[in-house]
Amino acid sequence: MSEIRKHYFLEKYCIIARARAKRPTDFVKEREPKPKPKPETCSFCPGNEDLTPAATAVYKYESNKLTIQKDEDNKQVKNWEVRCFPNRYPALPGHEIIAETPDHEKHPSDFTDDEITRLMQVYSDRTTHHLKNTGTEYVSLFRNHGRDAGASLSHPHTQLMPMPLVPPLIMQELTAIKEADRCPYCDIVEQESGGERAIIENDHWIVFAPHCSRSPFEMWMLPKKHISSITAPGCLTSLGTTLRDTLLKLKTLLNNPPYNYMFFQMDNSSYHLNIRIEPKLSIAAGFEKNTDVYINTMPPEDAARSLREINAPLKI
Amino acid sequence: MSEIRKHYFLEKYCIIARARAKRPTDFVKEREPKPKPKPETCSFCPGNEDLTPAATAVYKYESNKLTIQKDEDNKQVKNWEVRCFPNRYPALPGHEIIAETPDHEKHPSDFTDDEITRLMQVYSDRTTHHLKNTGTEYVSLFRNHGRDAGASLSHPHTQLMPMPLVPPLIMQELTAIKEADRCPYCDIVEQESGGERAIIENDHWIVFAPHCSRSPFEMWMLPKKHISSITAPGCLTSLGTTLRDTLLKLKTLLNNPPYNYMFFQMDNSSYHLNIRIEPKLSIAAGFEKNTDVYINTMPPEDAARSLREINAPLKI
Repeated sequence: MSEIRKHYFLEKYCIIARARAKRPTDFVKEREPKPKPKPETCSFCPGNEDLTPAATAVYKYESNKLTIQKDEDNKQVKNWEVRCFPNRYPALPGHEIIAETPDHEKHPSDFTDDEITRLMQVYSDRTTHHLKNTGTEYVSLFRNHGRDAGASLSHPHTQLMPMPLVPPLIMQELTAIKEADRCPYCDIVEQESGGERAIIENDHWIVFAPHCSRSPFEMWMLPKKHISSITAPGCLTSLGTTLRDTLLKLKTLLNNPPYNYMFFQMDNSSYHLNIRIEPKLSIAAGFEKNTDVYINTMPPEDAARSLREINAPLKI
Repeated sequence: MSEIRKHYFLEKYCIIARARAKRPTDFVKEREPKPKPKPETCSFCPGNEDLTPAATAVYKYESNKLTIQKDEDNKQVKNWEVRCFPNRYPALPGHEIIAETPDHEKHPSDFTDDEITRLMQVYSDRTTHHLKNTGTEYVSLFRNHGRDAGASLSHPHTQLMPMPLVPPLIMQELTAIKEADRCPYCDIVEQESGGERAIIENDHWIVFAPHCSRSPFEMWMLPKKHISSITAPGCLTSLGTTLRDTLLKLKTLLNNPPYNYMFFQMDNSSYHLNIRIEPKLSIAAGFEKNTDVYINTMPPEDAARSLREINAPLKI
């Protein structure tokens, strides 16, 4: 039978619909072989730097040392590792693209330790950079993977959107956190640690399928220590490798599904950083739009078991 | 430039992204020709009544009079106009399917006045029926049209989901309404009437593209009179024909796009019935999931103008 579950600390609900439950393999789609655009057609690929606005931060090795440079008038930095530049079609001023690698085909699930650690450093640097601007109240940091998850270009990239307001989702959580005796996320870490919904756990992080999963194979990644954002001291320790290992499990189990991941964070606040990974395997339809209650055909306990059992190589 | 817009009376926001603005024709997809399943493969088609659970309400003419009947043990009512039966894979107990017509190919946008008026009567009857059950706090009434909008079967149908709780979306609105001096929806009727976002207007209803449209061609349909639900006296007057005319404009302008429509209502309350029609033409991606702020590339004023100008035949 179906079960209505409540969010850990918000008035949000999902329905775990066991009558409709599926096996993990039911979510595996034959993905089309990835189209390989010729390098000249991808404006994020090396050699095409002049097809984007001037880069605002380019991570590049000079004499074995990682440096941060900028494009200058008609002179783009070449031979980069990570390249940050304004979106040509910004949804808001400051909307930034982070091209994660020069390799058109290599996504974070397949990054080396060094590559993924560097990317997290870039996330932290760019968040700090944008938060310095007067009027920026929040920096939304997110990744869309695959066309069904909203990625219109296939070159590996993350997006960053500075916002002049604290978004409603975060505001709602901050209000609930203020009213609580202690941090609800710290409670969640305690509750999910070593449990049936845990997927990856190490000294610093826990990855689990939330009790109130709204969609199949939804995962949350929480720092065990109470820190409010990726810019907090110590946050980067094993952040990247844990995220990479999570993505690799997902890719392996479900044949490279489309997904979004999002950083929920709020500098200098009582908020507890959390990263949510949501594979795009279901459709929010009329019922969800009418109620904000989500029907999920994959019990998170089953999703976690399948993901836990995947022995994705921990190092490439 | 982009513009952040706030919801009429809630702390919700959208971004109207003019830098990414498109023309209506950019949203027109070549739809695949509709697959025509052989009658024996569609469990909602006449002749296949034994493939569904026993019908709980069957609308059928007997001697030119519309009657409501029920399936009995191994004896299904045949030659029906509208057929209501339990979903074989219920997300919640009571989850009901309303097969809107015996015609596998005929959707509400193409219904005659009589057909669409009858369907609204069924919506009202079934809502009333389910609300009588102890423990039912809300009846979600919604339609998914097209695979991309979550319709897994193509036979024209609506769904109805009785719920043991008032969904968060409605609760949030009720709280805001309680705090307001007068009904915010009555204010909206006044504000949008005769304006640049109006699409259809008659004595009883207004259809418009909301100021804070979260997705391209989103439409709201409000009764001009303050009534709380489809079961209220007088509600059915021109409800069906206005909804049908709206759907026909949408179908004509955008080549039969996938969409959802949802009834937002709350019997015996201060709530103001509203129906929302949301074509599924964009993807809620990482940014939306991170913030609950929606990027919309189609300004509602432009959407309304295009829809207004469509001279869809008002009667079939």
